[in-house]
Amino acid sequence: MTTYTAIHLKQRPEDGKIGEYLFEVKEKDIPEPGDNQILIKQTYMSLDPAMFGWMTDDRESYIAPVELGDVMRSSGVGTVVTSHHPDFAEGDRVMGMMGWQEYAISDGKGMNKVQEGIDEETALCVFGLPGLTATQGLLNIGEPKSGETLIVTGAAGSVGSIVGQIAKAEGLRVIGVVGSDEKASWITDELGFDGAINYNTDDLEARLEALTPDRIDVFFENTGGPIQRHIVNRMNEHARVVVCGMIADYQAEEPTPGPNWLPLIKKRIKIQGFAMPDHLDESPALIKQLTPYVQQGQIKYRSHIIEGLTSAMEGLNLLFEGENKGKLMVKL
Amino acid sequence: MTTYTAIHLKQRPEDGKIGEYLFEVKEKDIPEPGDNQILIKQTYMSLDPAMFGWMTDDRESYIAPVELGDVMRSSGVGTVVTSHHPDFAEGDRVMGMMGWQEYAISDGKGMNKVQEGIDEETALCVFGLPGLTATQGLLNIGEPKSGETLIVTGAAGSVGSIVGQIAKAEGLRVIGVVGSDEKASWITDELGFDGAINYNTDDLEARLEALTPDRIDVFFENTGGPIQRHIVNRMNEHARVVVCGMIADYQAEEPTPGPNWLPLIKKRIKIQGFAMPDHLDESPALIKQLTPYVQQGQIKYRSHIIEGLTSAMEGLNLLFEGENKGKLMVKL
Repeated sequence: MTTYTAIHLKQRPEDGKIGEYLFEVKEKDIPEPGDNQILIKQTYMSLDPAMFGWMTDDRESYIAPVELGDVMRSSGVGTVVTSHHPDFAEGDRVMGMMGWQEYAISDGKGMNKVQEGIDEETALCVFGLPGLTATQGLLNIGEPKSGETLIVTGAAGSVGSIVGQIAKAEGLRVIGVVGSDEKASWITDELGFDGAINYNTDDLEARLEALTPDRIDVFFENTGGPIQRHIVNRMNEHARVVVCGMIADYQAEEPTPGPNWLPLIKKRIKIQGFAMPDHLDESPALIKQLTPYVQQGQIKYRSHIIEGLTSAMEGLNLLFEGENKGKLMVKL
Repeated sequence: MTTYTAIHLKQRPEDGKIGEYLFEVKEKDIPEPGDNQILIKQTYMSLDPAMFGWMTDDRESYIAPVELGDVMRSSGVGTVVTSHHPDFAEGDRVMGMMGWQEYAISDGKGMNKVQEGIDEETALCVFGLPGLTATQGLLNIGEPKSGETLIVTGAAGSVGSIVGQIAKAEGLRVIGVVGSDEKASWITDELGFDGAINYNTDDLEARLEALTPDRIDVFFENTGGPIQRHIVNRMNEHARVVVCGMIADYQAEEPTPGPNWLPLIKKRIKIQGFAMPDHLDESPALIKQLTPYVQQGQIKYRSHIIEGLTSAMEGLNLLFEGENKGKLMVKL
């Protein structure tokens, strides 16, 4: 095989709709890497909510949008097939930004080697962007303390499920907010969360009160939505809010209002927005923080794998419809 | 004179209404201080928005409400008339929590001496709770940097006016939000702010855009209200929000919604609620931080003085109606 498939962004989403009409699928010749470059055959590609921001350019974003005509941006895991780079050998497994394509050329910058004994799916699910995001947001911004109570929205998602499991390992009471009973069972029965709230069917305020007898010290926000203000109203003094995602609003025409700020004064609450691209230089340190939890078997994950590069174009909708069950990825 | 007047809290506010019906005015005998106590004759008494929270008990507050039957809580400045305390002498001028009464007994705890060369009105206006609040909130939480842009709401108020002047002294562009053209003129013409927005009459979004060509780095929030979300939408990356007061909401039945949190992620904004009672132990350090600005003539103030202790009962309404012109205080 001397050609490979790549998917380029052709146009910006109209009315927030995601689908094949946004992309151009191209067949290209597999290139030869230059000096200090490597050729990677991508095996798993990550699909993430942030992609919606990368496809649009009409909003202020913390990261530049993908230019029209460019290969769509994504992280992935793959194997080095040709190396002209001193730090990489053929057969090395690497993780990093590879784009929506079967082969990628890289100068090695931002490519992390997959650790021995870690399979590629685990690498992408746990040590990829979501796991590093969970680690940075929870440990370095949320500052969880044993005995405290944490609540995480999008709790069955790729970031949320790791946030909750690290918090459990650190000795916190952990409540997760999810969109289905199936996800609720998964986080409580399989991941060991202390409780789950189904935002589609539960009485949010009553359920929240019942599940957080000592109120809430850390709120890790991945979704937005109506439960947000109930959570803010139930926080303890000096509580911390880590704002990581607002997927409920990414496609909204009009931003939905947030919580009133009076509790922020009464409880001296800190709310900190953060975005992983600010912290990519810290990846090695974050991987080091995260590794012990994985080694001790404290981080389980669930992946939702779709097959074949072109399935990504429609598959991305699974994220916005909340239908993915675990980390969404494409097997190439 | 052997008796003095004290005002006790008789009942909690109904429907947020403030007035004489809340209080009982008592005539009492002037007491003799015990060992390690001082008797203070209060000369100026501060009226502050926080008092509304102190009078109610149906809300979660960072500080205990005043118990029914107790003397209403307040800070003030006065002169030691009798001292049985080794650290205080007759004639010393002191500042601290004295309550709504003409004389107060104190064990000296929390009483700061008024510095030489500072008159009592300045002491209460600049080195009282509002000035220390401004200092802590702006310098220690807002972390202003020369060349940045700061916006402060309640800009003609006792906290806001000092926040803006410290920020000017630190080399920031400073915009103030006020409720009248008269206040707008005062902060720009007298205090040297770079611009003012009248939230009652200006087109908030357009005026904000015109006055902040480099957008906003520090937002010091004293009031709440509709301009809040426009400000959050106009912040720079890594901006800081100091939430000090929400006077627009203290009397609200239903909390008004706050800004959507999506900009917090996109701009990695930090929002920190704070309350001065947490930092009273740091008062000496804060006074030290604030003193150079006062010594260099960089802090002007305006006081709104009402006369006689009993005028406080209705006078407090001036704060909620935004009719006070500067620091509201009672001359005893």
